[in-house]
Amino acid sequence: MTAALATLTDCVRKELTDVERLFHQELRSVLPSVNALVKHVSRFRGKMLRPYLVLLAGKACGKLSDAHAVIATVVEMVHMATLVHDDVLDEAELRRKGATINHLRGNEAAVLLGDYLISHSYHLCSSLDSQYASRLIGKTTNEVCEGELLQIDNRNNYDLSEETYLEIIKRKTAVLCATCCSLGAKFAGASEHCTDGMQTFGLSLGMAFQIQDDILDLIGDVNTVGKTLGSDIEKGKMTLPMIHFLQNAPHEHRALLRSLLASREADKIDRIRNLILPSKSIDYARGRASQLVDRARSALADLPDSDARRALDLMAEFVISRPM
Amino acid sequence: MTAALATLTDCVRKELTDVERLFHQELRSVLPSVNALVKHVSRFRGKMLRPYLVLLAGKACGKLSDAHAVIATVVEMVHMATLVHDDVLDEAELRRKGATINHLRGNEAAVLLGDYLISHSYHLCSSLDSQYASRLIGKTTNEVCEGELLQIDNRNNYDLSEETYLEIIKRKTAVLCATCCSLGAKFAGASEHCTDGMQTFGLSLGMAFQIQDDILDLIGDVNTVGKTLGSDIEKGKMTLPMIHFLQNAPHEHRALLRSLLASREADKIDRIRNLILPSKSIDYARGRASQLVDRARSALADLPDSDARRALDLMAEFVISRPM
Repeated sequence: MTAALATLTDCVRKELTDVERLFHQELRSVLPSVNALVKHVSRFRGKMLRPYLVLLAGKACGKLSDAHAVIATVVEMVHMATLVHDDVLDEAELRRKGATINHLRGNEAAVLLGDYLISHSYHLCSSLDSQYASRLIGKTTNEVCEGELLQIDNRNNYDLSEETYLEIIKRKTAVLCATCCSLGAKFAGASEHCTDGMQTFGLSLGMAFQIQDDILDLIGDVNTVGKTLGSDIEKGKMTLPMIHFLQNAPHEHRALLRSLLASREADKIDRIRNLILPSKSIDYARGRASQLVDRARSALADLPDSDARRALDLMAEFVISRPM
Repeated sequence: MTAALATLTDCVRKELTDVERLFHQELRSVLPSVNALVKHVSRFRGKMLRPYLVLLAGKACGKLSDAHAVIATVVEMVHMATLVHDDVLDEAELRRKGATINHLRGNEAAVLLGDYLISHSYHLCSSLDSQYASRLIGKTTNEVCEGELLQIDNRNNYDLSEETYLEIIKRKTAVLCATCCSLGAKFAGASEHCTDGMQTFGLSLGMAFQIQDDILDLIGDVNTVGKTLGSDIEKGKMTLPMIHFLQNAPHEHRALLRSLLASREADKIDRIRNLILPSKSIDYARGRASQLVDRARSALADLPDSDARRALDLMAEFVISRPM
């Protein structure tokens, strides 16, 4: 599937090169120490999901312009800023178990580097002719912050409802994907109906993506997923399989999960995984993600056939079929 | 002097009320937990120096419009975001000496709350008709981040030059003041010459303000200044009196300061204060601040007489005559 996706995304290859160039150009500083930190942050660069959404949504709805590369760079910077600040929160966790001054310096630099990224994202965005994108990006980052704040506010809340969980992941993950798609469409001259459709596509894809991410964190294989797993449990983040389990599993199983979540045992994550795996809760979460992917794909229905449209369709499918 | 200043600033009282209203209106969230944090952040509200600069610069150069209140609110939010993130860095210091989970949660919330403030500042700024203010605010916050990064990069650098120190305080403090004044003038319809003059005023005032702040941190009285003093030494920040001392005091005095700075003795701050006080280094730093205030006041020379102009003049004087 990834090979098929790579072929289809060829239609935005040139614009993606522009994004790379703009990214480095915008972040370049006269201060060597700042450049060193920016270089360091490159290790966070990943799949470029959000720039792809901007460019493919634009291409699927109309014609790409220079503004698309600018917006695609802006959303990637916003995303990286959130990663860097998430890292601060994670490093804070690490420090609980034993701080070093080096770690601490890293922490401070990470706060400021995240600020530097977000500042440059707005700076770059306000180079566009109109305020439209700036205003929507600002609204979007407002919601991202709210999602993150709502999340830490519900840390270790074993009674978290599915509704609030969905509200959290909508804000912290999905609205940025929705904005990527809607700006891509808007700047390609799409109709309001079409722009709304792309927004629905991005929102549904983003929510499915986060649910799948949360499932992987719980039951994925560390070598395949390529990052530390079980971190949601470590951080007291309730995710959909756990929420479903705590509301639907047999009474004694629920009680066991609660006591495991509250415990500090070394094998806590393995025990939680082994408790939830045989239940219906993973399937339930997968089903919800799958419904969201269906909704995303339906939102593409009115678009004419093109490589870009097919790439978006495949991306939506890929979101929930990522290797475990 | 403060009474005289209060009378003169009466000319922007209405607009300052608008700033208060806009501030709360922009930051209001549908999430109660976010509102609770925003309420908490109000304790950081201070002298409203930056909103005053926007409004007084505008009034001194021409006519105030609705945009002035928006911009004044934006710069106050930017300033508060930097305070909140500075607090994260400071709390990190505190944690070195013994962490609690509550402190930690406070730290995470502070990172996100700072992000929330900066996001809303850009969101509000992009409600203006043109991109002009958004672009300049973005450029300004880029420089603020660079100043902060340059500062932590030079922590415990006892060989820090005066030139680099001035570069740090210019970026981390003075450029925002310069932007306040230049946007105030620009949106009042001022000529380019006049706008440039106001920018020079803000930049010089901002630098003088930071030098005075640094002097107070070293030799001020905690009851008068009203915040923890000696924190620059604690954090390894070299400030102008120390830089001058390390380059001009008798050789054995310099060696003593270096060893005190590197030590972990409990009375380190008092000993450093007692070492530097009798030297010429405090006077030197005061002289530099005074020159900058003179430059700021000269930049007002071309403006017609008005309460706003006189208020700006008095503010510049007040920056270096604040009670010790």
